[in-house]
Amino acid sequence: MKNFISVKDVTDIPGLVKEALELKKNPYAFKKLGENKTIGLIFLNPSLRTRISTQKAAKNLGMDTIVMNMDKEGWALETQDGVIMNHNTVEHIREAAAVMGQYCDIIGVRSFPRLVDKNEDYSEDFFNKFIKYAGVPIVSLESATLHPLQSLADLITIEETKTKPRPKVVLTWAPHIKALPQAVANSFSEWMCKADVEFVITHPEGYDLANEFTNGARIEYNQDKALEDADYVYVKNWSSYEDYGKVHSMDSHWMMTNEKLKLTNNAKVMHCLPVRRGIELADEILDGPNSLVIQEASNRVWSAQAVLKRMLEAQG
Amino acid sequence: MKNFISVKDVTDIPGLVKEALELKKNPYAFKKLGENKTIGLIFLNPSLRTRISTQKAAKNLGMDTIVMNMDKEGWALETQDGVIMNHNTVEHIREAAAVMGQYCDIIGVRSFPRLVDKNEDYSEDFFNKFIKYAGVPIVSLESATLHPLQSLADLITIEETKTKPRPKVVLTWAPHIKALPQAVANSFSEWMCKADVEFVITHPEGYDLANEFTNGARIEYNQDKALEDADYVYVKNWSSYEDYGKVHSMDSHWMMTNEKLKLTNNAKVMHCLPVRRGIELADEILDGPNSLVIQEASNRVWSAQAVLKRMLEAQG
Amino acid sequence: MKNFISVKDVTDIPGLVKEALELKKNPYAFKKLGENKTIGLIFLNPSLRTRISTQKAAKNLGMDTIVMNMDKEGWALETQDGVIMNHNTVEHIREAAAVMGQYCDIIGVRSFPRLVDKNEDYSEDFFNKFIKYAGVPIVSLESATLHPLQSLADLITIEETKTKPRPKVVLTWAPHIKALPQAVANSFSEWMCKADVEFVITHPEGYDLANEFTNGARIEYNQDKALEDADYVYVKNWSSYEDYGKVHSMDSHWMMTNEKLKLTNNAKVMHCLPVRRGIELADEILDGPNSLVIQEASNRVWSAQAVLKRMLEAQG
Repeated sequence: MKNFISVKDVTDIPGLVKEALELKKNPYAFKKLGENKTIGLIFLNPSLRTRISTQKAAKNLGMDTIVMNMDKEGWALETQDGVIMNHNTVEHIREAAAVMGQYCDIIGVRSFPRLVDKNEDYSEDFFNKFIKYAGVPIVSLESATLHPLQSLADLITIEETKTKPRPKVVLTWAPHIKALPQAVANSFSEWMCKADVEFVITHPEGYDLANEFTNGARIEYNQDKALEDADYVYVKNWSSYEDYGKVHSMDSHWMMTNEKLKLTNNAKVMHCLPVRRGIELADEILDGPNSLVIQEASNRVWSAQAVLKRMLEAQG
Repeated sequence: MKNFISVKDVTDIPGLVKEALELKKNPYAFKKLGENKTIGLIFLNPSLRTRISTQKAAKNLGMDTIVMNMDKEGWALETQDGVIMNHNTVEHIREAAAVMGQYCDIIGVRSFPRLVDKNEDYSEDFFNKFIKYAGVPIVSLESATLHPLQSLADLITIEETKTKPRPKVVLTWAPHIKALPQAVANSFSEWMCKADVEFVITHPEGYDLANEFTNGARIEYNQDKALEDADYVYVKNWSSYEDYGKVHSMDSHWMMTNEKLKLTNNAKVMHCLPVRRGIELADEILDGPNSLVIQEASNRVWSAQAVLKRMLEAQG
Repeated sequence: MKNFISVKDVTDIPGLVKEALELKKNPYAFKKLGENKTIGLIFLNPSLRTRISTQKAAKNLGMDTIVMNMDKEGWALETQDGVIMNHNTVEHIREAAAVMGQYCDIIGVRSFPRLVDKNEDYSEDFFNKFIKYAGVPIVSLESATLHPLQSLADLITIEETKTKPRPKVVLTWAPHIKALPQAVANSFSEWMCKADVEFVITHPEGYDLANEFTNGARIEYNQDKALEDADYVYVKNWSSYEDYGKVHSMDSHWMMTNEKLKLTNNAKVMHCLPVRRGIELADEILDGPNSLVIQEASNRVWSAQAVLKRMLEAQG
């Protein structure tokens, strides 16, 4: 594996999930693999779970981690070419990425969308340029449009809990008080479309995700209908893709509750966290037996570790 | 040892002090004990000494450290149950603590009091909930009401410098320009009341500490009288407990000076640092032969290491 | 080597450069040397390259690193003696440095000039006091007036790329939109005056550097004349030393371009980064074959590693 930006970087999804579950059983089996190797984690936006799980995954593989909180440590990066840098940006991504590539064997990058200009965000300009200039493998810690380490952790969680070969998985939109990126939803959809599951997406009209990520999924605007016989319900808010970055609805009827769970096949409930209690998900679900949210968070370690292991192996 | 929140978590105080002093002589003797174990250090409030000394103690035991500056990394936590999270808090302590518990074998937490509502602060709600939901041992890096790693370091310092079996130890209030928590004073008192010392607390009227922590101490409002024949003088400011969080006095006569030292048995002077020179303590003491403040700070490492060692041993 | 604050701390410059180049070939040869040793990196000002390269150098030598961002972690230090600390400073450098010295075997410190009072900045009061009170070796991560780890990396870069025994090296002032310290220029000059090169400094009138650092260099106010037959051109902005901290010129004619390169002996172009494209240096140079800027940044690791190795060896 050269880079890990999208599900497209994975040639063998079931194999990667299997590898992650083996690492979970035996976390330190490959501690020699990353010896004297450094992963740099670059955060243009804040991170908690992603930083810690990736740091732990790297450590389990014997790697050192260097963290750069660019948002706080004050290095505003220029990404446009041919610009006279007489304003706020203090370093060009050409130098920043190339220098990091000198210090690190693998680089993880997190960069959220601005949610202002759809073309800007969906071009993934920042990631593409970082890959171009860094010269070392790049792993996404969440980009403007995707969050593949989260999706892999989600798939691992489904794999280790499923009770039938081809479960029904429903991704449902949920209300939120802020305008959130589509990245987690896009990414989950992209992975589920390639996984051995029956996959349905449900959301209010006006919240359709970009077709490039939902191709193959069934879209159902009636949440009740979508939830019928679901084995897994993945709850997530996102802002509108069509009316880009806007919040059209805060309809609290879309919040998952025990009442709604009755429509399902006693479905397990998933969420990437952090979750707004009483807005996205009812307390009764989060505190009840159907919630998988802590297990999902826990599996972030094995998701990251499986990906880093493959990258290290590819480097030789 | 399961948790380390108060002196009550220690069954054998002299044994723990002895163990710390043995670790000081031989810091790397237990480097295998913490292999592949992670301590997470969560700071709701800033820290310098506590972070570094705990990080070093963990490293000496072979553990990895992951630091989370929640105040800066922006995860405002909700602690109330049943709340609809439609305001500033982005994650509930139920999820935050449980997730951290998945990534860490031991968690250190620092959370200062707001000094607004006595009941809120003295309930130690945040710590109690963190312990409840994390599912792994919790070590206090200073809570609203106590700072046990500091107090243990103080006791270690007394133990290694005392010249008589049962020295006289005086905790004296000192002026400060800000309203400070009672945590260090509460904690020192709690530990001294259980140590083999003659313990006196002196402060202006209106500055009495909570009885639950001073039970067994002699309270003396006349500083000169309290200092008589003292072997150790522990200097510390705190805001009023009765008139909660308020500053009644900045009376500079309470500042420790060489003149006041004459009343003592050439007492050693202690302070947890950071110290305001010329306000809490005179330069002449800090720069003179009676000061133990640097030694105390140094002993923070062995205090933390003894506690972490016992926690690791209890985990097996 | 006890401290590393200036070129004056190095008795054998060619030997140190040779050692750095050997470490570059064999980075992990001395991994036992720093075992159970800790380097503290204290930043009064932000850092990216310096922090990461030093952290990596320390790791290569088997050391642990503890980072303290004092600017963000909120410990405003008092440096004046005899002060009553009733204002913003919360800890005196006497305690802060002494405590750090208890936790660390070597301390790296970065502290920029305020650019307000020449005497204050050029006295290097902060560094001198830190050295005095810490009691352990101090390595400069850039002080008010010097940046020796950068200069050593620059000299390493020249050594590994030079095609003649005594190349001509030109330090040229470049425009910038902000008032920058003289530290990089002072330091580069100080090192070049002791290296086996022909050294020329060129800048607009009014930008003369302090004589103590340029003693032995040829000063030439005509940039074109200075660049003639240059083998290396080191580009850097600095604010006025005479009219202290002021910006007199933003004359864009001083920016290095391919046109100007024609005056040189196909010179290699250097810059310490971060660089303002289109202001200090033209894109065509940074993206062209003559730029050494990424190699310089990369060599920061070996510069730091050679220095730390010598410090560890001196500690025994």
